[in-house]
Amino acid sequence: MPLWSGRFTGTMNPTAWDLNTSLPFDQRLAAQDVRGSVAWAGALHRAGVLTPDEHAQITDGLQTIATEFAENTFTFHESDEDIHTAVERRLGELIGPLAGKLHTGRSRNDQVATDFRLWMLEAIPQVDAALHTLQTTLVQRAEADWGVIMPGYTHLQRAQPILLSHWWLSFFWPLQRDRERLGQLAARTAVLPLGCGALAGTAFPVDRAGLADALGFSIPAQNSLDAVSDRDFVAEFLFCAATVGVHLSKLAEAVILFTTAEFGFFTLADAYSTGSSLMPQKKNPDVFELARGKAGTLIGLLVGLLATLKGLPSTYDKDLQEDKTPVFQATDTLLALLPVLTGALDTITIHPARMRAAIDPAMLATDLADFLVKKGIPFREAHATAGKAVRLAIEKETPLDQLTMEDWQTLGITDPAVTQVFDPQKSIETRNALGGTAPDAVRQQLNESKKLI
Amino acid sequence: MPLWSGRFTGTMNPTAWDLNTSLPFDQRLAAQDVRGSVAWAGALHRAGVLTPDEHAQITDGLQTIATEFAENTFTFHESDEDIHTAVERRLGELIGPLAGKLHTGRSRNDQVATDFRLWMLEAIPQVDAALHTLQTTLVQRAEADWGVIMPGYTHLQRAQPILLSHWWLSFFWPLQRDRERLGQLAARTAVLPLGCGALAGTAFPVDRAGLADALGFSIPAQNSLDAVSDRDFVAEFLFCAATVGVHLSKLAEAVILFTTAEFGFFTLADAYSTGSSLMPQKKNPDVFELARGKAGTLIGLLVGLLATLKGLPSTYDKDLQEDKTPVFQATDTLLALLPVLTGALDTITIHPARMRAAIDPAMLATDLADFLVKKGIPFREAHATAGKAVRLAIEKETPLDQLTMEDWQTLGITDPAVTQVFDPQKSIETRNALGGTAPDAVRQQLNESKKLI
Amino acid sequence: MPLWSGRFTGTMNPTAWDLNTSLPFDQRLAAQDVRGSVAWAGALHRAGVLTPDEHAQITDGLQTIATEFAENTFTFHESDEDIHTAVERRLGELIGPLAGKLHTGRSRNDQVATDFRLWMLEAIPQVDAALHTLQTTLVQRAEADWGVIMPGYTHLQRAQPILLSHWWLSFFWPLQRDRERLGQLAARTAVLPLGCGALAGTAFPVDRAGLADALGFSIPAQNSLDAVSDRDFVAEFLFCAATVGVHLSKLAEAVILFTTAEFGFFTLADAYSTGSSLMPQKKNPDVFELARGKAGTLIGLLVGLLATLKGLPSTYDKDLQEDKTPVFQATDTLLALLPVLTGALDTITIHPARMRAAIDPAMLATDLADFLVKKGIPFREAHATAGKAVRLAIEKETPLDQLTMEDWQTLGITDPAVTQVFDPQKSIETRNALGGTAPDAVRQQLNESKKLI
Amino acid sequence: MPLWSGRFTGTMNPTAWDLNTSLPFDQRLAAQDVRGSVAWAGALHRAGVLTPDEHAQITDGLQTIATEFAENTFTFHESDEDIHTAVERRLGELIGPLAGKLHTGRSRNDQVATDFRLWMLEAIPQVDAALHTLQTTLVQRAEADWGVIMPGYTHLQRAQPILLSHWWLSFFWPLQRDRERLGQLAARTAVLPLGCGALAGTAFPVDRAGLADALGFSIPAQNSLDAVSDRDFVAEFLFCAATVGVHLSKLAEAVILFTTAEFGFFTLADAYSTGSSLMPQKKNPDVFELARGKAGTLIGLLVGLLATLKGLPSTYDKDLQEDKTPVFQATDTLLALLPVLTGALDTITIHPARMRAAIDPAMLATDLADFLVKKGIPFREAHATAGKAVRLAIEKETPLDQLTMEDWQTLGITDPAVTQVFDPQKSIETRNALGGTAPDAVRQQLNESKKLI
Repeated sequence: MPLWSGRFTGTMNPTAWDLNTSLPFDQRLAAQDVRGSVAWAGALHRAGVLTPDEHAQITDGLQTIATEFAENTFTFHESDEDIHTAVERRLGELIGPLAGKLHTGRSRNDQVATDFRLWMLEAIPQVDAALHTLQTTLVQRAEADWGVIMPGYTHLQRAQPILLSHWWLSFFWPLQRDRERLGQLAARTAVLPLGCGALAGTAFPVDRAGLADALGFSIPAQNSLDAVSDRDFVAEFLFCAATVGVHLSKLAEAVILFTTAEFGFFTLADAYSTGSSLMPQKKNPDVFELARGKAGTLIGLLVGLLATLKGLPSTYDKDLQEDKTPVFQATDTLLALLPVLTGALDTITIHPARMRAAIDPAMLATDLADFLVKKGIPFREAHATAGKAVRLAIEKETPLDQLTMEDWQTLGITDPAVTQVFDPQKSIETRNALGGTAPDAVRQQLNESKKLI
Repeated sequence: MPLWSGRFTGTMNPTAWDLNTSLPFDQRLAAQDVRGSVAWAGALHRAGVLTPDEHAQITDGLQTIATEFAENTFTFHESDEDIHTAVERRLGELIGPLAGKLHTGRSRNDQVATDFRLWMLEAIPQVDAALHTLQTTLVQRAEADWGVIMPGYTHLQRAQPILLSHWWLSFFWPLQRDRERLGQLAARTAVLPLGCGALAGTAFPVDRAGLADALGFSIPAQNSLDAVSDRDFVAEFLFCAATVGVHLSKLAEAVILFTTAEFGFFTLADAYSTGSSLMPQKKNPDVFELARGKAGTLIGLLVGLLATLKGLPSTYDKDLQEDKTPVFQATDTLLALLPVLTGALDTITIHPARMRAAIDPAMLATDLADFLVKKGIPFREAHATAGKAVRLAIEKETPLDQLTMEDWQTLGITDPAVTQVFDPQKSIETRNALGGTAPDAVRQQLNESKKLI
Repeated sequence: MPLWSGRFTGTMNPTAWDLNTSLPFDQRLAAQDVRGSVAWAGALHRAGVLTPDEHAQITDGLQTIATEFAENTFTFHESDEDIHTAVERRLGELIGPLAGKLHTGRSRNDQVATDFRLWMLEAIPQVDAALHTLQTTLVQRAEADWGVIMPGYTHLQRAQPILLSHWWLSFFWPLQRDRERLGQLAARTAVLPLGCGALAGTAFPVDRAGLADALGFSIPAQNSLDAVSDRDFVAEFLFCAATVGVHLSKLAEAVILFTTAEFGFFTLADAYSTGSSLMPQKKNPDVFELARGKAGTLIGLLVGLLATLKGLPSTYDKDLQEDKTPVFQATDTLLALLPVLTGALDTITIHPARMRAAIDPAMLATDLADFLVKKGIPFREAHATAGKAVRLAIEKETPLDQLTMEDWQTLGITDPAVTQVFDPQKSIETRNALGGTAPDAVRQQLNESKKLI
Repeated sequence: MPLWSGRFTGTMNPTAWDLNTSLPFDQRLAAQDVRGSVAWAGALHRAGVLTPDEHAQITDGLQTIATEFAENTFTFHESDEDIHTAVERRLGELIGPLAGKLHTGRSRNDQVATDFRLWMLEAIPQVDAALHTLQTTLVQRAEADWGVIMPGYTHLQRAQPILLSHWWLSFFWPLQRDRERLGQLAARTAVLPLGCGALAGTAFPVDRAGLADALGFSIPAQNSLDAVSDRDFVAEFLFCAATVGVHLSKLAEAVILFTTAEFGFFTLADAYSTGSSLMPQKKNPDVFELARGKAGTLIGLLVGLLATLKGLPSTYDKDLQEDKTPVFQATDTLLALLPVLTGALDTITIHPARMRAAIDPAMLATDLADFLVKKGIPFREAHATAGKAVRLAIEKETPLDQLTMEDWQTLGITDPAVTQVFDPQKSIETRNALGGTAPDAVRQQLNESKKLI
């Protein structure tokens, strides 16, 4: 039976009940609901609403319920409309009508917002930890694969030689931004709705600052109408999740490419690969494809919530019940995905010879232009000359570094040192400004990244 | 054990396995998977790959499995990677190594696409039927509430009087478009992937046209590479679902408004209302708020899939595994929502007097302008004069129909018939062109709508 | 001055005016607005509202305006609120107060919906034609590149050999589905809102069926409330555009991969490539990257509209003004993108030798399994044996087709014919069921596709 | 002519050029591009690449260009591929081949990322200021409308009486969260890409920390590969914009409701209202409808960018060119919308009597329950009793506060003080805990909000 049947004469249509009930998903808030209720009982006691004995009985009952949830012995009833109702119903079974005092001055509107924030304040550190572990693996790979050089790409065309360590670390920083965003979100989430009632505040002299302290929030919400309807923290969490998803999808795309036969830079461990039901030779990077695909799904979760929130009148509307499923799904997705990617990257075999072989001399055309620049030629002219050299090499079907001095002279280059430009290792070493791919710069970057893990 | 372990030396990391397995959701394809396998066994038999006896054994085994699914006695194993593997594993238990012949010339790529299309070809008619039932209720309301007049709104401001029956039917036509789209989608879904193998087709002389017939598809897919990767039918289904969602959200928004104390046009039955845990007087239109909110969620499901599909290379990529969950969720949402809304609309109490009282005489200002037009005054001038009349009435704090003949004369109107303009019933009757709110036109519309249900 | 100032005492705040005006974008509806007005004047005339002479004057004036738009001599005024106002204002300048009769019985609500549908009924065939041209190029490439074999991929791993012609055609069919959807959308768009007034229909005896005929619509809308607010056709167009975008993004992704140095299957013509401001050797597939990127943008346009529509009360709300910009943007995007991709594909140089060289013998492991199947071994066991062969070849660091008879015997295969399995051409020829990659099947597919262009 | 034609033999196809060029939109980065180039010239000078004289000439030339942009005298050429090319081309016209030295060690990849961040670092404070102004108006309304009481709603059903000042402030706090997010985003945006080259860093000894200082960035980006491809700041800006949009849409929805004839709480100023081309009496809240509708569009802009970013390989891909249009559109939308809403709220006329009249005595049913609670009855039982009282009043068709003592006694309530419960003012005063609607609590909230503006 719902908590609110007093004014109603009929009972709810069963299909409507099934649509309306949130228990199938808000069960996940069980521990938070009990924690919030314990704190609320304390606040009611301090406000003089509950006697010490009443307070003790209610607290004992709630702790029994907490244990039942923890030990998975709590029995839900068909008639429990939601987790709040289930807990209050069970409390009544345990301590009798006194249980009915717990909901004094409280509404499910402030209660569910509190439960959900509590849940998220626990989920964020878990996601953060999983990101941190992935970052650690990236740093370890950067250290372990030190000295390996590979082609860097733009537009997926070979561009300039880079260090593999630099490449690994290029995925570190996006995750650092993700963690920074999550940390700021956690601070914004730690604003307590409890004590805001249904919309207008509570009529009992509850100390909301003390309540915030008791539940680990930083401050109470300042406006009760806003507090019961604010789902910014949900949207922001889903945005953070979508952004993590996008970052992982970019990593995944790159790994998928590098494990193709054509690139051949990486081999996945069998433990992180799958095969084909039909083609016996296949070894597929499914886990990375799932990472890429789930980025799409995560974007969808964000959109779903934003579209749901758009255009609602202020304070609580039932539409807000759509807020929990996407958060649970996003959290589960990230907590499933991140450890797998971490393990998969940790166990990847790299093929330095394939990477080295993929460094076409034409990738040093910029170095050729820079060589001319250092002779005082304006870069734009140097670029044009280097471009002509590339075209000449293509026409002659020869690698760029195999052009003869006669060839170079037709391009106006007479210094025989030009033939020494085409050394990838040297090329890398020149890119030594902060953030560049030169070993010294990458070492410095590695040190910075290690401070953050 | 997966189907593809031959070339692998290690086993899969457990967290990677958990991420990779699709069994938790593709179980819903169990019946379709068996149906598809029965047809495939038939095709292999006709192609000479299976002897009559082998065919009979396999078919018997599959029918046993179908029964197990139907009776809910099928046992999944931890090691079943997906529904296809589970069925093949079980078939092996039932008939021995012969089971291994079933997958000849088939891949999970064409298999899952076939299963999923079969599933959708069953789901679409269910959604269609639920839409049809809602349409029927709208038609019934239009008939039952015949003659009731109410204010029509634009920009949520009172605009012109309309018939309530006209208003009910305004929700009929969007659903008709939804059903039309679903019907066209069903035709596009009935294109068979089976027999396309992993990507390149099958090497056994399978009669794909016959296979299509056997499974109720209209034609076989024309290109195997496209067939295993085409998820247009999924995107289109999610678009149809989102569009239904948007239509329901508009209906819901209107009903929520009309059940407010301020509008007071509708009262929901208790069976389709909920109350408040805190405020004893509340009677809330939760089911309509959920309809509105779930429109957002449905939009998100569409986006998630589109974003997942975007940028994939052709043929099968594992990202496509993200396709099923949103379809199941969208289908479940619509099949839960539509009957509840149908019931809720069916049982709404209307308040004709409140509706009639809400027809402010100023809502007939257009009729006033039309009155002047019929005297030969250009509409634009007539509109301006009517606007001035409205302003005068506001300034005099009197209803528009209470202006005196002196007032009218200051506006240049001398015909006393002007005072007879302000009859909502007459106003409605004038809007008699096809599609308008006049009783004759609405009766004609009603007849058209009844042909479609 | 707006059309509606009669009842207002103040003028609009300039910033509010700037926000409110739709002229900056609805100018694109100029020709349609005039066409609709000509038809409306005709309907008013037939309804007896306009005399023959008035009708002639209005029609002449409108035709002058049409010419001004066509010759780009029409002058907009700051005070034109929208295209409708601009046309009516100009008509007044041309023919005097009689112009004020044109808006009799019409509202901007039915007018803009009509204009927009007219616009889209012209835009859809343009998009369709651009799709058709791209399809034609795909067919031409399939014919021109006949006989070339290439590796087919799943999960971006080499899977089975296929014909390049088969691959080209795999992009034909998705576009065919797009065209089919656009055609069905056009039919749904050809439902006329004009004559529905602001919301309740028109009070003048207008023949809406005749009006529909005159404007090339198939039928008049059945419900005026629905007609002025229905934006399904907009959402559906944006969905079609997003789906085209997704299809192009998949093609683009594949082409980008195939033009990498690592794949090396394709070279783009210089006319469809770009370079780097810094790296002289670069030749980038920008146009395909833009195709891929714009798929994301197109998805966003769809979402924006759906989110805007969600939760609106019925009939016209100003939110609907957000409908035009995304349609214009999506149309422009497709009409810019499709011809460029057509040209780029038409001029691609293919490298058959690189494609052939990429066919690793392990790609015929399925053929090896099929070879065993034809000896009566159940496929599942054959698959396992082929998998072991692949593993053995990897361990021996030898191509699969270089295993010795001793090797094969350790796997239980004694028939020396096994060594003849590894012929890609034969492999392709076996996949001869409808839709497969065998030359006969692809020839048949080509014939089917040619019927559609 | 593009900057990169050296290696190309053909020129670009004109349709491809039109697709590829970004000048139509990246012109908006003109001032930022010049600023970044001036700083880069300084860095090249300090690195010894430019002599003092060269540096002076380049700087002078750039300043001339800056003036040309500021005075709108800069002429773009058809052949300018983008803003960077246009500036470099013009510099060449002004100072000759020396201009070709400016691009030394720089790529358009790091350049455009820098320009765009500079642009956003200017746009964010503008959006912030517009939000701040709206907040100020909300605070002013809260002060000006002090003492007015109105019904508060949940589920759009009358719930509990509240202060109008409390309601105004409920829109203050969401904007405060928006501003907080924008501030954190600004900090994340102030990370400098310049000096990262195309992808691998720069080969000249540029002091990137000094460069960051010169351009007002806080630090240089740590990883060049990440720096040229990171578009987190774009996604985050679009998320912030979408969130602002959602907040404004909620405010708009409420205002639209309150300006209906049925609610009648607000009248918009004529300066912020529009009328109807057909219906002379209409006064429509278009600006609020546009705010609501544009929230949908803003959500779409976010989605478009996220979908574009998803699945890109790392470093620069041309897809990223899709990043600017949505940011410009979102910024323009917010800067157009916010001042209009500010003006509209500032000039709204409120109708306190209508608000007061809308406070149905049943809205004090919670107070009735609280009255019983204070007598020691458990809340749950008190809630049930109050619910029965509501039902009784409905059955008797009497307001709840008109029940007789006999009625109360049938419900078990004998204390005549019960009849004094139904005073909205007192009800409000009891909700005095922090964040509640009691005057003292709202006064405190007002003080907190004033500290933030």
